[in-house]
Amino acid sequence: MDPALINFKVLYVLTQLCGLTMIVLVATWIGQHFGGLAGTSNPGVEFNWHPLFMTIGFIYLYGNSILIYRGFRTTRKKTLKLTHAGIHMGAFILTVIALKTVFDSHNLANPPIPNMYSLHSWLGLSAVIVFSLQYVAGFVAFLAPGLRENYRIAMMPLHIYFGLFGFVLAIASALMGITEKAIFAIKTPAYSTLPPAGVLANVIGVMYVVFGALVVYLATEPSYKRKPIPEDTALLNSSSVNE
Amino acid sequence: MDPALINFKVLYVLTQLCGLTMIVLVATWIGQHFGGLAGTSNPGVEFNWHPLFMTIGFIYLYGNSILIYRGFRTTRKKTLKLTHAGIHMGAFILTVIALKTVFDSHNLANPPIPNMYSLHSWLGLSAVIVFSLQYVAGFVAFLAPGLRENYRIAMMPLHIYFGLFGFVLAIASALMGITEKAIFAIKTPAYSTLPPAGVLANVIGVMYVVFGALVVYLATEPSYKRKPIPEDTALLNSSSVNE
Repeated sequence: MDPALINFKVLYVLTQLCGLTMIVLVATWIGQHFGGLAGTSNPGVEFNWHPLFMTIGFIYLYGNSILIYRGFRTTRKKTLKLTHAGIHMGAFILTVIALKTVFDSHNLANPPIPNMYSLHSWLGLSAVIVFSLQYVAGFVAFLAPGLRENYRIAMMPLHIYFGLFGFVLAIASALMGITEKAIFAIKTPAYSTLPPAGVLANVIGVMYVVFGALVVYLATEPSYKRKPIPEDTALLNSSSVNE
Repeated sequence: MDPALINFKVLYVLTQLCGLTMIVLVATWIGQHFGGLAGTSNPGVEFNWHPLFMTIGFIYLYGNSILIYRGFRTTRKKTLKLTHAGIHMGAFILTVIALKTVFDSHNLANPPIPNMYSLHSWLGLSAVIVFSLQYVAGFVAFLAPGLRENYRIAMMPLHIYFGLFGFVLAIASALMGITEKAIFAIKTPAYSTLPPAGVLANVIGVMYVVFGALVVYLATEPSYKRKPIPEDTALLNSSSVNE
């Protein structure tokens, strides 16, 4: 086996462990320290869906959707594209629910909390918008039929750049979000005395960074790039005949 | 001229304008809203050196040092390496001063504020450590004589990856720092009502992201990569004879 691929496999498994740990830690954080999950009748606790679903959807699924071209290198391209779009759709749905719960937790609070005032909200929403525009552009350019091959080739570097940009911006927004929640909600004892809830907040932030760094590395290292397999062309030709 | 280089020049000028605007806005923020600059006799205001020098050193100079290989593409390699190390040394000195002033502002406060409890402090210090290790490794691998060429070639992708990783982590840390300062210090009127100090905080955060996104794009886009010039080899040979 190509020695680069052995390194890749080790790092890929590490990335998954890191991502799953990150989700478990967020679930533990909100479960142990902030009252778990609730519906609209308890807006302060309903908020907790926000970090949980953003972590699962907008960080873990987003990262994994980027990585499927590397992790499943012997699967044919068309299946990978559909899976990429499918996982991203899952990420988008969880992200929209996560946005709804945070707006609920502001609007239904007594008194209501203003929306969209923090840097976290500005950059987080920017990341969602970048992600959504990327989805539409990616669908038109690479999944829908009809676009000429030279346009597809020209768009690919931009698709990769803005995909990774949105992912890194999502992580930066999550770091600001964890910071906000820790300052607002870790009061007795205070965040500044590093109680368990504060240490856990910081460890979650570190996991976000490690997961993000691994995903970007695996996605950009040239020796890990997927090489076209014979089925890609063969099936492309037969399917274009069949369509 | 290569059409890619025309795009490059436009984006390079935009990056500089964005970077300078970012510094001016941080200076305005601390000058207009938080009392300007002071020494150890006024720890609360001495703090203000921290965002100012981190923005100039750990973001603007760090980014520009990365970019000199692209911006000054007709300068010979050895001069660029020395300039790269020199600008990074300037960035490091400003960063160390910025760290000293934040520790002062905690330790000399009455009562003292605990150090190193926030996610901002954990990730910010990690970015400084990554930067410092990179500096030592880069010096040994690419400036000091003696390392064999095949080691240099093997280390270059890691040097580039960890250089960009440290830069992006510095920006993420700055975003958390702005978030902290806005929550702690924008009280009357509150940050949640988006007063001028709050809007300015958010705009500074947006500028950090735009500057970072431009630097990473300019540094990673393959068509902007510097090509070796004849002097690189000629002067390398003559200098190795002269040394």
